[in-house]
Amino acid sequence: MIVILDLCVVPLGVGVSVSKYVAACQVVFKDAGLSSHLHPYGTTIEGEWDSVLGAVKRCHEVIHEMGAPRISTTIKLGTRTDRQQTMADKVRSVEDLLAEGM
Amino acid sequence: MIVILDLCVVPLGVGVSVSKYVAACQVVFKDAGLSSHLHPYGTTIEGEWDSVLGAVKRCHEVIHEMGAPRISTTIKLGTRTDRQQTMADKVRSVEDLLAEGM
Amino acid sequence: MIVILDLCVVPLGVGVSVSKYVAACQVVFKDAGLSSHLHPYGTTIEGEWDSVLGAVKRCHEVIHEMGAPRISTTIKLGTRTDRQQTMADKVRSVEDLLAEGM
Amino acid sequence: MIVILDLCVVPLGVGVSVSKYVAACQVVFKDAGLSSHLHPYGTTIEGEWDSVLGAVKRCHEVIHEMGAPRISTTIKLGTRTDRQQTMADKVRSVEDLLAEGM
Repeated sequence: MIVILDLCVVPLGVGVSVSKYVAACQVVFKDAGLSSHLHPYGTTIEGEWDSVLGAVKRCHEVIHEMGAPRISTTIKLGTRTDRQQTMADKVRSVEDLLAEGM
Repeated sequence: MIVILDLCVVPLGVGVSVSKYVAACQVVFKDAGLSSHLHPYGTTIEGEWDSVLGAVKRCHEVIHEMGAPRISTTIKLGTRTDRQQTMADKVRSVEDLLAEGM
Repeated sequence: MIVILDLCVVPLGVGVSVSKYVAACQVVFKDAGLSSHLHPYGTTIEGEWDSVLGAVKRCHEVIHEMGAPRISTTIKLGTRTDRQQTMADKVRSVEDLLAEGM
Repeated sequence: MIVILDLCVVPLGVGVSVSKYVAACQVVFKDAGLSSHLHPYGTTIEGEWDSVLGAVKRCHEVIHEMGAPRISTTIKLGTRTDRQQTMADKVRSVEDLLAEGM
């Protein structure tokens, strides 16, 4: 089961800056061989369910190891059985409609 | 790693009513032996990371088997290393403050 | 336009405990005359769009006034034009299905 | 109060394709003069709270007018009083850390 997943991690108890924890997650995704897309409010990754969710678990482990005692995470994820669709497809289908003047 | 997870599944391509899919997820949680709390905008479950996330995967499988070709899911989840906290603790700590007049 | 909205506020830069900020939001909802339901991973409120979203804005203002320099919030919200549905209806429709043995 | 908001709208009762509704929201943001960033799992916009949340309301109105009887939306939003930060700043601060080898 292929999943596209959007991850936003918020470590608590470590001040207001979260960028180094987000950067650490990028390394986790890269090490897991997952394609990822960093955007202003999270990171979108895609792949097999177990690989993707395994990487999310690893992010929590790494952020705790970095010293954050609490993490609050928001995830959006989608699966579909009707057809395959990549992260890039999702953006392109919207951009195509806009280019056609809707 | 204990996780408290809030799950909101939205099946697409099967009309506007989602209640039977949400009900099927309650059965998944019960079968997995996970304590769960159904609320107006999702279900909160708690337990070991792998058990909880395994149940979420099973929900997606079950909803697809029920005929939904696409599922859009929103998850909030929290882990902490400083202390143990249950779903009930989270509600109680807020209610205690309100009872004290804040 | 009636909206059912699920709110989860996470103040940053004020340590790991968020309960007093969540409690302050309950007071905001009560003062706004909005019915609300506190659950383990947020608070669900319902009402007219402008009243509900106005209360969410007020929550951010109050939490900043309490000293939190940064707030990360997750919201799920739903509107529908086909029929009216309350927070209680949403839970009941799932519970009815479960009581019928699905 | 400046807000950075990530919006993901899911119309129900109109089949599995959501791209034309997402495209309609891009037009709403443009008409409102808001800078926006389309990514694989939503659109991030930034601006004054009332302008941004007003645009979100307008998106719901437009999607209902396009025929969707029900909309399920997920929003992440952030405000901060300690300093100004744009959508671009958020991405850049993570990329800078990665470029430095963390």
